[in-house]
Amino acid sequence: MIIIEAISKLATQLSRLPGIGPKSAQRLAYHILDLPEAQAAELSAAISAAKREVTRCPICGTYTDVHPCKICSDTSRDDTLLCIVGMPRDVIAMEKTREFRGKYHVLGGVLSPMSGIGPDDIRIQELMERINLQPVHEVILATDPDVEGEATANYLARLLKPLNIVCTRIAHGIPIGGNLEYIDEVTLAKALEGRRSM
Amino acid sequence: MIIIEAISKLATQLSRLPGIGPKSAQRLAYHILDLPEAQAAELSAAISAAKREVTRCPICGTYTDVHPCKICSDTSRDDTLLCIVGMPRDVIAMEKTREFRGKYHVLGGVLSPMSGIGPDDIRIQELMERINLQPVHEVILATDPDVEGEATANYLARLLKPLNIVCTRIAHGIPIGGNLEYIDEVTLAKALEGRRSM
Repeated sequence: MIIIEAISKLATQLSRLPGIGPKSAQRLAYHILDLPEAQAAELSAAISAAKREVTRCPICGTYTDVHPCKICSDTSRDDTLLCIVGMPRDVIAMEKTREFRGKYHVLGGVLSPMSGIGPDDIRIQELMERINLQPVHEVILATDPDVEGEATANYLARLLKPLNIVCTRIAHGIPIGGNLEYIDEVTLAKALEGRRSM
Repeated sequence: MIIIEAISKLATQLSRLPGIGPKSAQRLAYHILDLPEAQAAELSAAISAAKREVTRCPICGTYTDVHPCKICSDTSRDDTLLCIVGMPRDVIAMEKTREFRGKYHVLGGVLSPMSGIGPDDIRIQELMERINLQPVHEVILATDPDVEGEATANYLARLLKPLNIVCTRIAHGIPIGGNLEYIDEVTLAKALEGRRSM
């Protein structure tokens, strides 16, 4: 096999991205080589620029290019309602619903004893300081509905309830448009458990 | 919606890559932001380096970092057997078979009247000059088995046959491990047409 090092290197870098296996990585590498010079330079520059210009909001911890971020500085939003999420991308997902008018707190991860991530490794300290400075009425725990997300939500609820803060968890159940037949049994059990009168 | 321009720009650039829709592009953009500084820089640098270091072989037209490329300068390979492919990535695919011991000629595209790509836009002139300098016994036409690839193969066969060069086309048929039931009828018809005694 003829190996061209610069192509292999590029493919290796690309294969580290999520959802891109070795085969797609090589396909992408060749596509990038086929691009006009200017367009490849734009792609490379966009990566550097994003890393350089985008930082974390000092208040909520989400990605931003202004300080504090546009959500934190939006006075029309409810300061006493806090939605806690794991990662900055979760803020985008929540904002897309157009339903939430409070503020966010991004943990920057979830508790994961298996990966050695404890309470001091995510932004829990910052959350407590923030609640100290600015009274919060309700905290919505919107970490992912997996084992680590659940554990993190439980941990935070135990921490916040003694402070007389209402702690709620986003609902689990069958997704809209979902099909009972194809829903896993854990989700279906949660949907049964969380049933509402109608 | 809160729009962070550097993130949108990165996502736009990523969404131009094949097989990456707007949603994966945004997911990738956030993943890149989450990467350690050094790793993002490596990715960005790998793109620039690949574009800078990888050029086209002046003889066969494939991607290379030496001139001429390792295949063209390999004296153990048969100079009189030429495999004609559309793009540099096709050379990699052919090389993986470990079956071909001749040389390549990369057209850098295929004839496509719809996109305004004519014989002067792909490396046909270079092919003719090459055959003039170095006698070729057989040409294997290995362009893709789609409409444009077939048209290009036919065009080249008409051009080369008068020069007393044997022109062959890679076989069409059902792929190994394929299932008759799921093969489209055009392929199946080709497989029937190309049947061999056994």
